[in-house]
Formats: sequence, C-alpha cells, structure tokens
Amino acid sequence: MKPAIRPQKQDVPALILASGSMARRQILTGAGVPFGVDPADIDEEALKQDLLAKGQTPRVIAQALAQAKAIARSSQTPGLVIGADQTLDLDGILFNKAATMAEAEASLRQLRGKTHQLHSATVLARDGEPVWQEVVTASLTMREFSDQFLAAYLQDQGPAILSCVGGYQLEAQGVQLFEQIEGDYFTILGLPLSGLLAQLRLYGVLDE
Amino acid sequence: MKPAIRPQKQDVPALILASGSMARRQILTGAGVPFGVDPADIDEEALKQDLLAKGQTPRVIAQALAQAKAIARSSQTPGLVIGADQTLDLDGILFNKAATMAEAEASLRQLRGKTHQLHSATVLARDGEPVWQEVVTASLTMREFSDQFLAAYLQDQGPAILSCVGGYQLEAQGVQLFEQIEGDYFTILGLPLSGLLAQLRLYGVLDE
Repeated sequence: MKPAIRPQKQDVPALILASGSMARRQILTGAGVPFGVDPADIDEEALKQDLLAKGQTPRVIAQALAQAKAIARSSQTPGLVIGADQTLDLDGILFNKAATMAEAEASLRQLRGKTHQLHSATVLARDGEPVWQEVVTASLTMREFSDQFLAAYLQDQGPAILSCVGGYQLEAQGVQLFEQIEGDYFTILGLPLSGLLAQLRLYGVLDE
Repeated sequence: MKPAIRPQKQDVPALILASGSMARRQILTGAGVPFGVDPADIDEEALKQDLLAKGQTPRVIAQALAQAKAIARSSQTPGLVIGADQTLDLDGILFNKAATMAEAEASLRQLRGKTHQLHSATVLARDGEPVWQEVVTASLTMREFSDQFLAAYLQDQGPAILSCVGGYQLEAQGVQLFEQIEGDYFTILGLPLSGLLAQLRLYGVLDE
C-alpha cells in the first residue's frame, strides 16, 4: 500500500474497509488512501433475500447492504469504516453473481441489446452509526453481440467472470460486450471516489 | 498480449498502433484486441508549434496529430493503423507535458480550482488514407487543494508525473486533485474505446 502523503495527525481516525473486494482495495490503494481491510461478518445473502421479499429495488438493496456492512464492522472496531455494495439492475430486476458458466451465459443473454444500471453504494460509519452515504449509478448498454461472440467470450474468459455480477469486467475483454457506457469508471468498478475522498479530507484521513 | 477471441480470417487486416504510449497499449491489451506497435516517425513538436502559430484550438491539434501519426505509419505499413493523440485544454490554452518538477508545479497551480478538458483523438488509416476518426472530450475540475497538499503530492509522486500532460494520473494519487470528473475513463487515459471497438468489428479485427 502506498504511504499517506503526510504523517497522520494524532486525532485522525484509522480507516477500515469493511469489504473483501479486491477491486475496492485496488482503487483505494491506487488513490493513495491509507487504510486497513476487515470485512464485515454479516449474512449478505439472507439480508438480500429479505429485502427482495419486501419488494425493495436494486438501488435500495445496494444502499442497505453497504450500510449493514459499515455498521456491523463499526460496532466492533474503532475508527472510520467504509461499507460498500454494488447491485446490477435490469428494468428493476436484481441480478446476482452467476454460480456456474451456464448461469453466466444466461445472464449475458438477458443483458444483450439492453441497458442496465450498476448502483454503487458507499457508507461511512463511526461508533456503529452511519455518518455519510451515497449511491452513484452508472448506465451500460450491451450491444447485440452474436452467439458466436458469446461462446468465444465465455470460453476465453472462463470462471474468472463468475466473480463479477453481470459476468463482465470492463477493465478486461468485457468491454467488447458494450456499445455505450455512461458513468464514472470507479463507480462501475464498485467504489465511486469523488464523494468519498471529499469525506476523507473532512475527517483528516487525507490532506486538504 | 491476450489472443484474439477467434482465429483471424484471411482477409482481416493486421492492426498497428502507431503510438508509443504505454497507457494506450495497456488499454488495447486489456480489451483483448490483437495488435502490434509501431510508433509513427513524425516530428510531433514541430507540427504542434505550426498549428499553434496558425491559431488552431487544442481540440483540432489533437485530431491533426492523431491523423498525422496514422497517415505517416499507414503510408509505410500495410494493414489498419491507429493514430491517437490527447491534448489538455484550459480555456482554449494548450498545456504541454512539463519538462521539470517546477514546470509541473506551475501547471498544477494554473489548473487548481478550474475545469479543464482532455481531448482524445483517434484516427484509423489504411494505405495512407484516414478511414475513420473521432475526438472525445472529458471535463475535469480540480479542487482548491492547499499549497501543503501540492508540495506533498509533488514530493510523493516525483518525476513520474512528467510523463503525463497536466501532471496527474487518475489511476494513481492524481485522483485526489479533483472534485469532479466527467467523462469516460478510457478517454481520460487517452484512448476512447466504444467507437474504436465498433470500427474494429466492422473491419473484422474483432468478432461481431
């Protein structure tokens, strides 16, 4: 991890990322933010199913999961805690990560030729209470790729795509699936930075 | 480099990137595009000075430089050639790469608290003639960072920033300089992908 650009002051809270996502770690590390990683111990799947049963939207679910992670970790750990979550939304339907290549193929067939949204939610918590939150949405349109393209894509990418909701990585060959991408790159990767960095400056984690 | 996702057909032209930029190579490689690199042998600086003397805008200069690179390489090399260039535009003034850390500091002081544009131009040429071109613009607003932040940033980043027009890398700590970023990430890095990938499908370099 890169060092902070100045020594931390004594009253500056430690910053903890309550997420195991490698993409989020890489984004924060790249940006030069000093942080530790300590994923929250919550049953995300049960919470998601509960929210779906209550008819909540993918956007609300992203925010609720980010908040649950931030609060759970922050209740047990001093400092400033980042909770984050991202959901994929096709016309109000939440897409989950595919468990098998056959499921990934089915997802990509459903997304083909259509515009979907990625909702990236970030919550900062301290002493078990949220102190700031935002949800940023990106909008992505898949082109009408051929069945031949899809078969070759799945074969070439392999099980790596099962770690990504939607079955694509925009920083890799997944970019070939799209005809239009509207939204911030960090939002698409799962951690919008502009608002978060401004908060980290307010809390003294980053220099003004 | 990643292999093409299907074997090339016999009538598919070879693709040459006429740019020495590592960022552009990485973008194309990441996207799974099969290509070779053969930078164009032109005097960019003389061409730029000539265009500036004629009162051309930063946007036009990006396009002219991308075209000059594509045509120069394509006149000597068979296949499809990508020429690319990017200019930084603050209220119509073209910013060059800084030669020294003192120049980089002066640039960042000028950009501080203001919105500037990055114009990324791409030209495809074949047999010495342009066959497609586009210019995509991103708009970035630097925050009113403190002199203390700037000093620490310059010390921390060091001469690496001299390779970047504007003195920042958005994929690194440079993102801390900004309060707002509007535009596609690949455009900011210097090679907008959506339009280019669509053309490469038309030419059979990529699968439909």
